Amino acid sequence: MNEQDRFKALVLKKRPVGLCQRADFELIDSPLPKLAPGEVLVRLQYISVDPTNRIWMSDQPAYMPPVALGEVMRALALGSVEASEATGFEKGDFVTGLLGWRDKGIFKATDLVKVQVPHGVSPSSLLGPLGMTGLTAYFGMMEIAKPAPGETVVVSAAAGAVGSVAGQIAKACGARVIGIAGSAQKCSWLVEKARFDGAICYRQESVADGLDRLCPNGIDIYFENVGGDILDSVLPRLALNARIPLCGLISQYNAEGEAYGPKHFAQILMKRAFLKGFIISDFAHQFPEGIAYLSSLLKKGQLTYQETVLNGLDSLPDAVNMLFRGENSGKLIVQI
Amino acid sequence: MNEQDRFKALVLKKRPVGLCQRADFELIDSPLPKLAPGEVLVRLQYISVDPTNRIWMSDQPAYMPPVALGEVMRALALGSVEASEATGFEKGDFVTGLLGWRDKGIFKATDLVKVQVPHGVSPSSLLGPLGMTGLTAYFGMMEIAKPAPGETVVVSAAAGAVGSVAGQIAKACGARVIGIAGSAQKCSWLVEKARFDGAICYRQESVADGLDRLCPNGIDIYFENVGGDILDSVLPRLALNARIPLCGLISQYNAEGEAYGPKHFAQILMKRAFLKGFIISDFAHQFPEGIAYLSSLLKKGQLTYQETVLNGLDSLPDAVNMLFRGENSGKLIVQI
Repeated sequence: MNEQDRFKALVLKKRPVGLCQRADFELIDSPLPKLAPGEVLVRLQYISVDPTNRIWMSDQPAYMPPVALGEVMRALALGSVEASEATGFEKGDFVTGLLGWRDKGIFKATDLVKVQVPHGVSPSSLLGPLGMTGLTAYFGMMEIAKPAPGETVVVSAAAGAVGSVAGQIAKACGARVIGIAGSAQKCSWLVEKARFDGAICYRQESVADGLDRLCPNGIDIYFENVGGDILDSVLPRLALNARIPLCGLISQYNAEGEAYGPKHFAQILMKRAFLKGFIISDFAHQFPEGIAYLSSLLKKGQLTYQETVLNGLDSLPDAVNMLFRGENSGKLIVQI
Repeated sequence: MNEQDRFKALVLKKRPVGLCQRADFELIDSPLPKLAPGEVLVRLQYISVDPTNRIWMSDQPAYMPPVALGEVMRALALGSVEASEATGFEKGDFVTGLLGWRDKGIFKATDLVKVQVPHGVSPSSLLGPLGMTGLTAYFGMMEIAKPAPGETVVVSAAAGAVGSVAGQIAKACGARVIGIAGSAQKCSWLVEKARFDGAICYRQESVADGLDRLCPNGIDIYFENVGGDILDSVLPRLALNARIPLCGLISQYNAEGEAYGPKHFAQILMKRAFLKGFIISDFAHQFPEGIAYLSSLLKKGQLTYQETVLNGLDSLPDAVNMLFRGENSGKLIVQI
């Protein structure tokens, strides 16, 4: 490693209020320390932009502790090894991990996962359909919801990185799948490319009306990414013994002050529904099974996906906001 | 059967707004029809008073269709056979079923369940710890929550017919059990008689403060009977992978207008909690197993219970209100 090697990173300077601002972060440019035994120097290629990034910026109880002020912003990323003092890692290997908002970094080998890029797909798919978002869809659908042929499945944020895969998994199981998304273009993609049975654009009609139209026999499975009033439109339309994998509540992460409480919560009781909050790390021991399943769907042409790619560290803060404004289609990533 | 045999009953005249009124019901006094083959004449002894009675009075989607205006009010009850034209039922047999708010009635044998009163307990226990409320506690705790030794279990409406049994089952499983109830007297009963590890009187301290004091390591299981702001005090204190058997939401059944949405709903996601609405009829095929378990707890002295007994059909409407005002201790029944 060259002694002059430096890295750039965005550190959290103050906690955002509502949408995050570029000014909530500071760009640092610092020398990299010397590689110690067991460590690996990684050059980042793609940084994954996920709703959970916004959660980590807030000082609230959540999955993981918040990012401390002055720390490099936490994020999942894909990179390649530049230099290694750890056995099992060699220059050129692809790795993923919580590498953060930076262009380069030194990491303990134990914090990295070595990954293979399958033939015929882009490396970035390891952050999308073959990575965390695809696996999140897989475990939520296959371990929690377990769709049966003919059941009605509704997915919110259906054109997003998780929702689009979740819906296509349910289709592969033989279910009828209805997506909820925020633009006519996304809804067309869902029906025409991802082969959903129907889509509701919440900016063009009320979700309640759309569900009445498309789910006349009630909703057996609701794959929840959004929360708020979309959840409240779904709850009264649950079928008996409905299952709700609770994957995300993106409508709530920017909320300041009092959160929105689902007013039709009692329907969970009335319909004897089942609700399970989950995160992907709970299923870490089953990742190979999930990746094998998703790779096989890809190969059979049963899994299509979209990516929205931005460029450079500076684009990261507003990239997070794009998720909340619904401006991405499919997986949102920043190329470094 | 004597041709002059008549029966009295309360029929629903108009749907209550908020608490129910005696004037929402009309007392009828009518001749009984002649017994047909397959039918049984039952004299009611005890009518069970349950929160679900209030649900059935409202014209809202729920477990069962609402009671129609002009119909005898629906309720679970225990009675004895006076005359039978059905094989398997003889004069003197005890039966339970949805016999309704009446003193006598003719029922199809297929709508009745013949029951045995175990030695040493009162027949009314078949509506309480050995009946629907005891079984509700059993299945919610043993099939959904599954307490492990040392886990922290919180029960709302803990001095009620379901909550008191649920807590004692968790104790029998080796859990630490904290009850939430509405009077100092109920809390004393929970700790001194039902051997709960602690109790919170929500009229004397905030539930949040009580939970912080008594559940320093978080809440592994929350047996939910109440909803509303008590649920909102519990949610931020859930332990990871908490389980919530959702048995009832009594704080909501009288609500007119907009229901209370739990503002800390997102904690179900953050704590990867599991929530399951259930009703006892889902477990009908397992009733014998549940009754055997509860009888054995009773015999071993590990299950104590209270009854609040009122008299006569006329006491029924306000008996339902007593549940919502928290004026009963343990199982509330009306003797006919």
